Amino acid sequence: MRPIQLRLVQILEHTKDDDRIGRYCDLLIASMVLLNVTAVVLESFAAIYTTYGAWFHGFEIFSIAFFSIEYLLRLWAYGAVDPDSPARGRRDYAFSFYGVVDLLAVLPFYIQFLIPGLDLRILRILRLLRLLKLSHYSSAVEDLLQAIYDERRAFGAVGYILAIVIIASSALMYYVEGAAQPDKLSSIPAAMYWSVISLTTVGYGDVSPITPAGKVISMLTAFMGVATVALFTGIIASSFNKQLVRRKVIYEQELRKAFADGV
Amino acid sequence: MRPIQLRLVQILEHTKDDDRIGRYCDLLIASMVLLNVTAVVLESFAAIYTTYGAWFHGFEIFSIAFFSIEYLLRLWAYGAVDPDSPARGRRDYAFSFYGVVDLLAVLPFYIQFLIPGLDLRILRILRLLRLLKLSHYSSAVEDLLQAIYDERRAFGAVGYILAIVIIASSALMYYVEGAAQPDKLSSIPAAMYWSVISLTTVGYGDVSPITPAGKVISMLTAFMGVATVALFTGIIASSFNKQLVRRKVIYEQELRKAFADGV
Amino acid sequence: MRPIQLRLVQILEHTKDDDRIGRYCDLLIASMVLLNVTAVVLESFAAIYTTYGAWFHGFEIFSIAFFSIEYLLRLWAYGAVDPDSPARGRRDYAFSFYGVVDLLAVLPFYIQFLIPGLDLRILRILRLLRLLKLSHYSSAVEDLLQAIYDERRAFGAVGYILAIVIIASSALMYYVEGAAQPDKLSSIPAAMYWSVISLTTVGYGDVSPITPAGKVISMLTAFMGVATVALFTGIIASSFNKQLVRRKVIYEQELRKAFADGV
Amino acid sequence: MRPIQLRLVQILEHTKDDDRIGRYCDLLIASMVLLNVTAVVLESFAAIYTTYGAWFHGFEIFSIAFFSIEYLLRLWAYGAVDPDSPARGRRDYAFSFYGVVDLLAVLPFYIQFLIPGLDLRILRILRLLRLLKLSHYSSAVEDLLQAIYDERRAFGAVGYILAIVIIASSALMYYVEGAAQPDKLSSIPAAMYWSVISLTTVGYGDVSPITPAGKVISMLTAFMGVATVALFTGIIASSFNKQLVRRKVIYEQELRKAFADGV
Repeated sequence: MRPIQLRLVQILEHTKDDDRIGRYCDLLIASMVLLNVTAVVLESFAAIYTTYGAWFHGFEIFSIAFFSIEYLLRLWAYGAVDPDSPARGRRDYAFSFYGVVDLLAVLPFYIQFLIPGLDLRILRILRLLRLLKLSHYSSAVEDLLQAIYDERRAFGAVGYILAIVIIASSALMYYVEGAAQPDKLSSIPAAMYWSVISLTTVGYGDVSPITPAGKVISMLTAFMGVATVALFTGIIASSFNKQLVRRKVIYEQELRKAFADGV
Repeated sequence: MRPIQLRLVQILEHTKDDDRIGRYCDLLIASMVLLNVTAVVLESFAAIYTTYGAWFHGFEIFSIAFFSIEYLLRLWAYGAVDPDSPARGRRDYAFSFYGVVDLLAVLPFYIQFLIPGLDLRILRILRLLRLLKLSHYSSAVEDLLQAIYDERRAFGAVGYILAIVIIASSALMYYVEGAAQPDKLSSIPAAMYWSVISLTTVGYGDVSPITPAGKVISMLTAFMGVATVALFTGIIASSFNKQLVRRKVIYEQELRKAFADGV
Repeated sequence: MRPIQLRLVQILEHTKDDDRIGRYCDLLIASMVLLNVTAVVLESFAAIYTTYGAWFHGFEIFSIAFFSIEYLLRLWAYGAVDPDSPARGRRDYAFSFYGVVDLLAVLPFYIQFLIPGLDLRILRILRLLRLLKLSHYSSAVEDLLQAIYDERRAFGAVGYILAIVIIASSALMYYVEGAAQPDKLSSIPAAMYWSVISLTTVGYGDVSPITPAGKVISMLTAFMGVATVALFTGIIASSFNKQLVRRKVIYEQELRKAFADGV
Repeated sequence: MRPIQLRLVQILEHTKDDDRIGRYCDLLIASMVLLNVTAVVLESFAAIYTTYGAWFHGFEIFSIAFFSIEYLLRLWAYGAVDPDSPARGRRDYAFSFYGVVDLLAVLPFYIQFLIPGLDLRILRILRLLRLLKLSHYSSAVEDLLQAIYDERRAFGAVGYILAIVIIASSALMYYVEGAAQPDKLSSIPAAMYWSVISLTTVGYGDVSPITPAGKVISMLTAFMGVATVALFTGIIASSFNKQLVRRKVIYEQELRKAFADGV
């Protein structure tokens, strides 16, 4: 049994680059995910759903069967990864990021039978969680998240500054314009919506200042927004450069070694 | 014949820097392109088109003749580039990026005679394709595209994250506010318009949230937008730096060599 | 007495990393600050304040007692830092950034008894100053501010350019559209609100150009805004890289030394 | 006479860092500029102008006298810079950037007597040109402009791409929504206003798409806008880094030399 399980892990995780079956397997799962997303998007058109509802339902049953079998196969195959204990290998998979994503791809469907009165629309949104399965196949996303994770301390600092700016600007706006626009700025959390939409420079314009003091606060908030975005971008750019420099230092060391050997 | 063809390629591609005829040729074609764009822009004013319609039509006929002759000259001249096979040199040009652009500059005009009922306005937009001919003369654009192409893996990852954020935010918005704003958020694709306009921090404000849950989703979407823009910018900045570092490593190596020679 | 004072500084400033009491003390003060901010935010809901007003008042009295004792303890403890003069140690603390923040956390409460007719809502905003106490516990914020401070000369230049762009664009807009939109662009300062909201690319849309000349000014202002944001971001990214390079130079020097020793 | 002239240049240009008179002179001129800007801003309030019009007029006459004398003094003093020909030193100053700025600070006032029917409001805007005199005193601005100038080739490429995107998106928008919104998108130049406001992510919302095709074009334009801003920022960040690297290479060379000498 163990060789079959190990081969299955090899195929499902596509660990070998020149593995043709592994690549077809990747493509099949990715296609199923994209078809599922397309289905959820199309179903949202009332006219389409009314006409083809049965087809969508059929496809969902098929998808659930497909992803359930995939999940069970993975769970079974991972039993062989740890030579001492099958349970440990399975638990490691089940509690890994991808194990949780694979489970979340099918779980909501089964839960609806346990909780009868569940809103079916929430189930539909949850089907979009299947999108996360695609990241199985993209190591670039992991690199990106790693670069962000490496700078978590700097992002924490920006987050702290951002929180202070949001709270301060929304509190000021609430006290200054709360009386002038009671429908839009009735509380600090209501003013926070204005603050975030201004700081991120989105600026829908559904809430905008009408008093001179409010306009001054808006201008300051807009500047703080630009500064925060710049800080954010600066940290990310510097994080990517850090990776670059690290690789370069290694490269130069080797160059120097080769140089020293040659001389 | 061959020397004439080769000289023609030299002139049309402006391969020699100190070639006066080549420079005049560049200037002539660039001027024709800019005049064409100006004509398309001016024609869009109803008042101007009504009055000077005949002039614009005459200029278009002249332009078609000009660009057609240019295309045929290039096609003929490229026959001499490959010494073994004229057909191969011509095919290489015809299927290159610039060959396709040169063809697209005139093709739509001839197509209208094949398809009689064609909307003339589409023909006018297609005339703007001639703008791409200008990039013949700008190697900086190629450098830029190269820098972006070098980072295609990182951009792919950002694109994947962006796609997830767009789909997730628009699906959530549709389910949360679809009932409250049936005219604006009637389907997930409709909500995608809101999502993209928010994520890119454009924020026209023609679709904005009205329920508290929708406002929370908007705020999260705005933050994700800022993060995505920052990722994007960080990758591009890092890509330019990579070029910089590469050049610097080469420079330092030469410096070190010179240094070692001197000592 | 001195050993107790020095131990108290150690706990309150959490100078030793493995100090359990210091960590609990940090956590306690941070929790009080967050509870205070939550209270201010919740109080802003009229319905909540009407029902639970007495509770909020009680919590404020308790907070004032807590932060007052904390401030007095710090003031007392810092008397031991300078062995020669207790007054100097205390003065150094009292006039340091954190000393001022700690004082501002409680001072507004006591001031209301001196100035009887004071607007109570201003007192509530001032309670948000307690948020700044959190930065006691975040050295990352200091790193960030240091990076910005290192580039103050470049930021000064961007600030100067920004000021010129704001004044020029608002003056132009006022002269061009002042007559067309007298309610929104009645003076240069009024036009400055439009200018800042445009330059920062927020663009609420409450003030937007209606004449062709005004639209041209808006387009130029929007471009200048993008350029300014890019300059800003570029300086910050470069400042972070400078830190990076500085660290790398030190690292390489050590590497080279180790290398030379080994050879 | 020559020593006096040279001393005057020294004072007016503040070439010696520890020159007290030079510093006072700088401060005096900078204060006059800021007072002039304040005056122009305040005059724009109709109520203030009506009441204090005479004062503002008096201050303007005083300012013109002040800046005229300053200009003439500079012109006279620069006659001594070139030992061979006074005319050449004066011409060099008069046609330098600062010479032109100094002239523009006073010229509009005198021109009104030559052209009697001139709009007085244009004269007021032109008084803001005096702001540029401040850059006399900020070398950081020159560094900034130098960094931008060094990357003019890359900026040219971005500008070319931007021009194509603006023309293409506005032409598409005009053809797609021109009929649906004839009041807002009546011509390609009118659509360009929408295009620029979208590309720069300002998004006032005064012109926004109403047809599905227009919304798709808007989404693409918004993405192109984000990409252009990112390119822009990346080039600027990379330009600042280039300066950094250049300085670092020099620093390392010196380090290496010192190292080689020591060994």
